[in-house]
Formats: sequence, structure tokens, C-alpha cells
Amino acid sequence: MVPHLTTAQTGPLLALEQHILDAMPRIEHWLRKQWLEHGTPFYASVDLRNSGFKLAPVDTNLFPGGFNNLSPDFGPLCIQAAMAAVEKICPDAQRFMLIPENHTRNGFYLENVAALATILRQTGLTVRIGSLIPDLEEPLTLELPSGGNIVLEPVKRKGNRLVLDGYDPCAVILNNDLSGGIPEILQNIEQSLIPPLKAGWAVRRKSSHFAAYNRVAEEFGALIGIDPWLVNPYFSTCHEVNFQERTGEECLAAKVDELLGRIREKYRQYEIDHEPFVIVKANAGTYGMGIMTVKSPDDVRGLNRKQRNKMAVIKEGMEVSEVIIQEGVYTFENINDAVAEPVVYMIDHYVVGGFYRVHTGRGIDENLNAPGMHFEPLAFETPCSMPDCAGKPDTAPNRFYAYGVVARLALLAASLELETEEVVA
Amino acid sequence: MVPHLTTAQTGPLLALEQHILDAMPRIEHWLRKQWLEHGTPFYASVDLRNSGFKLAPVDTNLFPGGFNNLSPDFGPLCIQAAMAAVEKICPDAQRFMLIPENHTRNGFYLENVAALATILRQTGLTVRIGSLIPDLEEPLTLELPSGGNIVLEPVKRKGNRLVLDGYDPCAVILNNDLSGGIPEILQNIEQSLIPPLKAGWAVRRKSSHFAAYNRVAEEFGALIGIDPWLVNPYFSTCHEVNFQERTGEECLAAKVDELLGRIREKYRQYEIDHEPFVIVKANAGTYGMGIMTVKSPDDVRGLNRKQRNKMAVIKEGMEVSEVIIQEGVYTFENINDAVAEPVVYMIDHYVVGGFYRVHTGRGIDENLNAPGMHFEPLAFETPCSMPDCAGKPDTAPNRFYAYGVVARLALLAASLELETEEVVA
Repeated sequence: MVPHLTTAQTGPLLALEQHILDAMPRIEHWLRKQWLEHGTPFYASVDLRNSGFKLAPVDTNLFPGGFNNLSPDFGPLCIQAAMAAVEKICPDAQRFMLIPENHTRNGFYLENVAALATILRQTGLTVRIGSLIPDLEEPLTLELPSGGNIVLEPVKRKGNRLVLDGYDPCAVILNNDLSGGIPEILQNIEQSLIPPLKAGWAVRRKSSHFAAYNRVAEEFGALIGIDPWLVNPYFSTCHEVNFQERTGEECLAAKVDELLGRIREKYRQYEIDHEPFVIVKANAGTYGMGIMTVKSPDDVRGLNRKQRNKMAVIKEGMEVSEVIIQEGVYTFENINDAVAEPVVYMIDHYVVGGFYRVHTGRGIDENLNAPGMHFEPLAFETPCSMPDCAGKPDTAPNRFYAYGVVARLALLAASLELETEEVVA
Repeated sequence: MVPHLTTAQTGPLLALEQHILDAMPRIEHWLRKQWLEHGTPFYASVDLRNSGFKLAPVDTNLFPGGFNNLSPDFGPLCIQAAMAAVEKICPDAQRFMLIPENHTRNGFYLENVAALATILRQTGLTVRIGSLIPDLEEPLTLELPSGGNIVLEPVKRKGNRLVLDGYDPCAVILNNDLSGGIPEILQNIEQSLIPPLKAGWAVRRKSSHFAAYNRVAEEFGALIGIDPWLVNPYFSTCHEVNFQERTGEECLAAKVDELLGRIREKYRQYEIDHEPFVIVKANAGTYGMGIMTVKSPDDVRGLNRKQRNKMAVIKEGMEVSEVIIQEGVYTFENINDAVAEPVVYMIDHYVVGGFYRVHTGRGIDENLNAPGMHFEPLAFETPCSMPDCAGKPDTAPNRFYAYGVVARLALLAASLELETEEVVA
């Protein structure tokens, strides 16, 4: 099942997908060169928005949490890609420690941890799961909703090594985005940490990612002869915003105004008959907390207490002081009248699958990855690597190929971003 | 469907598969190290024989001809592996020329060419098919049994480059095993030739491959603590045999006798209650011509005219002057009472699928890849990379994993072999 694009829009619908399809050899050749020059993150997932005239990434997660949502048919692809990644990053490793988030009551997330451990084991690694849960003294067995269980063991430090009871791993895979800062136990360890600490939200900034993405989109646009805006959401940032203390509001309103103006101009150019909007969100952090849909500068002025509380704090109770204002991209993809947003999964530089977040209760301009949000995952049925160049651009293999291309642009941006990012622990 | 092992044999049945399964992390770690040290062929297929107590390669093909027999479900695996291969060997290539065999009337083979071209196109390469058919002047369109067609164009030489009309490729993929020698048009070309000319039967010798395999099997045996013989068929060679002129017969009989003796000893050691046999075949060449099953030295003495003719000439009318005498490995795998032999396919160092040659009219000690032999291909239903370590060794994923391991040992032997082989065009 592929979502239908439902929009009254008369602009260049599907032209972008056709363009990507036609340029396939040039795109793959260019990407090959990029991967030779830039190291790729071990894994990543990219949230895309597809409005038909525009297909763009809105978030790149370096600690992907939905491997359980991928089609089991793509298991072999994940394993093969993980083999390639391990070969590059730590060929000598035999024993891995996987460190997940501390969400022990989120069954979906635990399924992800189990799925990830299985992929790693099937590449031929011994894997045990280490947990950073404070005060965890004994191994903790957690039941999985799908049956079976996983065992979390307390992570210990032995000199400069992370160990478990009777287990000294060669490398540590993080599936914990470090939103709460870099714990002392992870600092200055001698084993390989994958991805590195600077990929965590304690260091990373969305604005650095999208600044890198600007460069990637420019180059990609020139390569295949398209306006880079068609794959790139505009953005700007506001530093020193404090929602609780109501400071920085005017700066934010001004930036919103300026960005809406630039989008309006583009909509005019492409004859897009929709109201521009922007998304305001924390510059560091994840999990869809601290996110607002904004259609006018007035929307960010004089927020009430509830709105301010929602924006002020993200995961792990961290305070928001920097925000990114990102061009909103309409979601015109629908499955049975429900909005559907694609998430593409990658290991090393290989696209290994993806799924749609399908949600009936939300609008086309809202963020589907928000607290309290219950989406139904719908796994991509075909892989992203098998376009049918003779087919229409919106057939399943071709749409998925376009997703895979744009997701890899975001992955490349993450590579550039991590090259420059420094750990300021 | 997985074949059943049907044998009255009381020896260490399935012990080998269990051993391979248990040693998985050690095996994958060791293989990772090997691939870092040794370049892998672009692609390969390996014919295996499985008698339950022994699982061994009997032939390694560096110009695999059955991609059409793989399960379509593994298409994405092939594409991903081909991307990795292209990245390593010729990252800069955009346009490929694929040079197949000249068998224009073999519909199965044409399907293989089409399947291969599709895989390469889906990695993002432009692919056109160049043919070495003598006197081909114009593009030749050939219908495929499955529908559609392929176009063969005459290969031309322009200085030191191979070209087609209006097409100058960056690299040339050979799917032609050069049994008839290295054509002049392929000599000293400046484009990458993949695999290199020395991988063709004009240069390659089965005995060099199995000499390299001896080293690989020794190391593998030591690694997982097994007798290397369990994955390695004994062999010896006879040079200067001439079946037409009846010279070299005594040398051959003596070697057969010596080899049967060594096998007999192993059968005794493992309490295997079967009659040893050897296969005598051309040391250079393929396509199952010039192959004999031999159970006694007398079998190679005083051959009648028909037998001698059968042995004297292989593909492309080449005369046999060197033979390899290889330990026969019983095939105890059966599907619906038909003998089934696995063939494993690899691109770069990734196992991308395989199939069984299923043949009702042949015995467990005969060669299934022989002229006039009509096998039914039965695609592997599950990939070779997803063992279920909790399951029994003969469940489908586990049997396929063992196949994949032994096939990769043969691939590694091919890597070593190509490192030392010199072109003597």
C-alpha cells in the first residue's frame, strides 16, 4: 500500500519524483563519491514530509528507535548493512554492548531494542544489553509485548572500560540519545563508542544539521538541475529564548515573520495555493516535545501558561533555551483518509527499510511525533532500492526510491555535521 | 522447503552444522579480518555437496550464470551488495558494459544476463550489453522466455577502449568465462575489467583454487576446532593426460588409487559406511563437460572411444590435457526423492541467495551440472544470513547459514588464488 497524494494543488506535482528517477545514475554516482569522502553514522532514521511538490527531511535521528516497525522481509538487508558498518568502524570487534534508553515501560521501544540486538547478533556479534538506569543493581528481565524478553544489565566502569558482570565488550553501541547530558560513566572510555558522544543531543543542534543540509541540498540541486528548495525546508534559529520567563519572544516573532515571507514567495513562484506555516521546536532534543505549529508571528506572542510549559521543557526535563524555526512542509500523503508520514531507516549508507506513521486524529500541518501521539506504524512493503524506471513516479518502488534518495541526503548532512561538531561535555 | 538428509549413515550427522552454528561469532569475526586483507571477486557462485557428515565446495564459478534462479525476494540484497562492490572496485564508474557468453539460444542463460543487468541498473549504473559473437554487425534483440527482451550490441575497440556504438563505458563486467582463450579485443584495454582476465578459464586452474582452499580449510578447521576434511574434498592432479592418444592413463589410475585410499581411511575414522568415489574432470573449464565418476582405478583404464571422446573435449572445443581428481562428496539431500544440490551466490563478500539443482534422474554420486542435464532450480526461500541459534541445525535458516559459511570459504580461496595467478595470455 502506498499513500495517495491528496491535494487540490496545481503546481509541479510529481515532477520532483520523476526528476529524481530520471537522474538515478547521476545521483548514485554522486552519492558513491560522497561516501568515500565522508564517514557515515552507524545508523540513522529520517522523518520525511511529502507534499508532492516538495519532499524534504524534517528530522534526522542518530539513535533510531523503530527497527521493530520495519518489515521483517528486510531483515537480511539490515544484517548485510550492519556487516558493512561493523567492517568499517570496528572490524576487530566480537563482543558488543548495546546501551538503550531507560524507558523500561515503553513496550514499543523495548521491541526496538530487541530488534536491534537481533540484527547485531545475526552479523555474528555477541551482544549483551547494558543499562544506564540509576541504581540498577541486578540484571532486569523485561517482557516484550510480542513474547520473549530482554535482559538489561547494569553497566559498570572498570578503569576506562565499560563492562557488564563477566563481560568485557570490544565496542559499545549507543541507542540512547543523551538528551539528559553525557553521563560521567560514558566519558573518556577506551572502547569504541558508536555513534560517538557528539551525536547525542547533549552536543548536537538541529540547526547545525540543517546548515549542513543546506550545503548538501545546494549541491544536489545543481547536480540534477532542480531548485534545492524542493528538497530543503528553510530554517532559522533563535538563541536565548526562555518561554517561562517570556524572554526572546520578539526575536522569535521576527524570525517567524521573515521565514513565512520567504516561504510565501516560493509558494507564489510555484503557484502553490496553501497557507505557509513554520514549526518551532527545541534546537536540541527529540521526542516531539516542545513543538509548535505557527502560521503567523502572533502565534508566538503572548503564549498562555499551558503553551509556555509545553514549549519550555523537553525530554529528561531539559530546559529549552534555543529554538529552531523550520519551514513546515505539508503532508499530502494519506492512507484511508489518515495522514501518513514516512520514516526511512539506514544502516551505514544503505537504506534498509522504513515505515509510515499513520495517524487519523491529526492535521496535515501538525507534527505526528508528539507526546500522547499514537501512530500506527505501516512498514514499507518494498525496499527503497528497486525503482522501476519505466513506471510512473508514484508507483510504490519509485516513491520509495525518492524517499531513499532524500533520506540519504539527510544522512550525508549528518556526516558533515559530525565532522565539525566538537564534544563539549 | 529444505531438502531432507536421507542416509543410513551413523557417523557424525549434523554435528558439523551444529559446530558452525555454535562458532558463528568467531567465524564472522575471522571472515571480517580476511576481507580486510584480501580483495574479493566481484561475484561468484559455489556448488556445494552436503552429505550431512561433510559439507564441501566442489566448484567455484567466477562468472556465475544463474542470477535468474534466485528468489526475487533477495533482489534488494543483490543490489545492496553490488553497490558495495562497485564502491570498492570502481566508485567512479557510471556506465557499464556487460559482456555475456555467446549462447544466444540458451533462454535460461539469457534470463541470467537480464537479471544481472537489472541488478547493476538498480545500483544506479547505466548498463548496455556488449557481445563477442563473431561477425555480429548490428544490435541483436533476443526474446526472453519470461517476456521482454535483451539487446546485444557488437563490442568495438577504439584505441585501448572497449565501446559500443555511441557508448563509451567506464568499466566492463565480464559474464563470459573465457573458456576459449582471451580474445584479442579484450587484451590491454584501459578500462577496468571485472573480474580480471586471469579469472577466466584461459588462465585459471581448478587445482590452484583447491590448493588455496586447502589453506583456507586448514585455518578454518583450527579456528572452530574441526577436522578440515569435513569441509574440504581431497584432490590431486594429472598433467599431460591425452584421452584421445591414450597417454597418461597409468598416472591417472595411480592418482585415483592413492586418493581413494585416503578417502577410505577417513570413512573408516568417521565410521562412514559408503563406498568412496572420486570425480575426474578437466583442470580448466566448466559446464560439466569432461567429467567422470570413478570408484576404482580400473574405471580410468582402457576407456572406450565414447568415454574418451566425452573426456577429451570441453566447452569451446578446447582439448583436455590436465585433469583434477577430486574426492567425491555424496549428496544426501533430497527433495521429493530427487537429488538436490545447493549453489550459493555471492556479490562482493556477501551471500545474496542461492538455489538447489533438483534432478530426478541422477544418482547421489553423479555430477548434476552435466551436458544434457535438465535440473529444476529451486530458489532458497530464506537468506543465508539469519541463523536461528536456538533452533536445530537442520532447520532452513541454519542449514542455509552453514551453506553460506562454506561458500564464503571457497570465495576466500578464490581471492587467494587470484592474488597469485598471473595472466599468461
